[in-house]
Amino acid sequence: MPSPLSFPPIDTGALRCREVMRRKTIGVFDSGVGGLTVLKAIHQRLPLESTAYLGDTARVPYGPRSPEVVIRYCIDNARFLLNQDLKLLVVACNTASAVALDVLQKMLAIPVIGVIEPGARAAIEATKNNRIGIIGTRGTVKSGAYQSAIRKQRGNVELKASACPLFVPLAEEGWTDGPIARLTAARYLAAFDGFGMDTLVLGCTHYPLLRSAIAEVVGEGVSLVDSAQTTAAAVEELLDFRGWKAEGPSDAPPSRHYFVTDQPEPFADVGERFLGEPIRGIERITFPEF
Amino acid sequence: MPSPLSFPPIDTGALRCREVMRRKTIGVFDSGVGGLTVLKAIHQRLPLESTAYLGDTARVPYGPRSPEVVIRYCIDNARFLLNQDLKLLVVACNTASAVALDVLQKMLAIPVIGVIEPGARAAIEATKNNRIGIIGTRGTVKSGAYQSAIRKQRGNVELKASACPLFVPLAEEGWTDGPIARLTAARYLAAFDGFGMDTLVLGCTHYPLLRSAIAEVVGEGVSLVDSAQTTAAAVEELLDFRGWKAEGPSDAPPSRHYFVTDQPEPFADVGERFLGEPIRGIERITFPEF
Repeated sequence: MPSPLSFPPIDTGALRCREVMRRKTIGVFDSGVGGLTVLKAIHQRLPLESTAYLGDTARVPYGPRSPEVVIRYCIDNARFLLNQDLKLLVVACNTASAVALDVLQKMLAIPVIGVIEPGARAAIEATKNNRIGIIGTRGTVKSGAYQSAIRKQRGNVELKASACPLFVPLAEEGWTDGPIARLTAARYLAAFDGFGMDTLVLGCTHYPLLRSAIAEVVGEGVSLVDSAQTTAAAVEELLDFRGWKAEGPSDAPPSRHYFVTDQPEPFADVGERFLGEPIRGIERITFPEF
Repeated sequence: MPSPLSFPPIDTGALRCREVMRRKTIGVFDSGVGGLTVLKAIHQRLPLESTAYLGDTARVPYGPRSPEVVIRYCIDNARFLLNQDLKLLVVACNTASAVALDVLQKMLAIPVIGVIEPGARAAIEATKNNRIGIIGTRGTVKSGAYQSAIRKQRGNVELKASACPLFVPLAEEGWTDGPIARLTAARYLAAFDGFGMDTLVLGCTHYPLLRSAIAEVVGEGVSLVDSAQTTAAAVEELLDFRGWKAEGPSDAPPSRHYFVTDQPEPFADVGERFLGEPIRGIERITFPEF
């Protein structure tokens, strides 16, 4: 009979590791409040997980900035969040996912999930006629990130992408229904007239707030792919696969931490609508080189 | 009869100085494209002047940032433009004028003009019933800069200020007329219902583009004070007073320089509407510590 010491140490190590990993935190960052829609979806789907959110509000928006600038900002954000005892990092920003995900995945030892790949996968699952529309910020659309993520998985799709820059300020202002939201949605979505899509990707973390105005314009025949929901699903899938999911009473109660790089008050005011609950205890941080 | 040498040397010095100063450049900075409305007004009023414009597009917008961050950015901008052989610096940004004008005026040897003081003066000249409305970004309104600049010059005025955050993205998107602009203007300007103002200060460099939608809502009885125009007038007044105005053929032909801190293309695309003419030869700069 083998002595206990002869058991392969890898198993107990992996088990111990899983126990440790289950208690660790999910880190989420965005340039501002938008990623809170992703965090909200994570909280709803995985209520036992501890989370740490960083909104880089001193340098928002990332959309119009050049790739090298965005990559630099993302590295700053990741470096800060890594000190929060993470098991997983979510890049809850389309611009950052399009531009910096590869770099972060190569740099970091923990898994890094962006918002584009899950949205692309959900769009392919949703479409029946292989005609998919994509809306996002000017930067996301121009980057072609959704287009190439979708084409990588399925070649025979017709894609059309269009930018809706006013959706972000409308969502932040809270004007998410009423005539101005509807007219703005109608004006932007006219770009898809005659395209015949059955699926539309909301390729910006702000857009779930405008979901009903968008749905009204495109009609019932078009499935809306909400990248906040699909990203939360991808997070769950990864935690399940690795056995890292927090498991309730035996683990510590989940913590929620919020960090910003500029004033906490406007973040709290606007962010509440995005998170769907009040945001308390926001901590302002400064990057050394900023 | 005194020899020529006995003339007070200060005069020839001042004259020589004036000749030199006439040929120097007017520096203008803003966080982005908005200040181009001020530059446009300067070009129209003072077509012989050389100008250098810096749009700090890598760090736009300044509105939501804290005063100490904005001051730091403004010092960077001023320091860069000072190398362009300036006679005068225009802070063509309401947020920066509200927060950093004092600091820059104390730091720099050349005169520094902001957009708030000229707008406040013009509002006082325009009002007959001493009821003045002010619109601007959330930051400008909250700073109370227009309110205190107006009250400093006239005590017995009724002031009401309200923020119109969507005006900036509407102007940048080029949606400056039509139903969305009108509905947005009507919704924001409803804040002034019953106030009885006869003067409204457009306290943001983007707002002149929405002038006709705003005028339609407030009606003919309300004078609109355009801070781009009033700032250009203040620049001319100062140059006249000092004898520093460029004087045509005898001076070198005026130059126009444009600098940005992020990608030139979006600046050129959006800026053209603000400047009213194509913008060529935009140079991208980097701050050492940025």
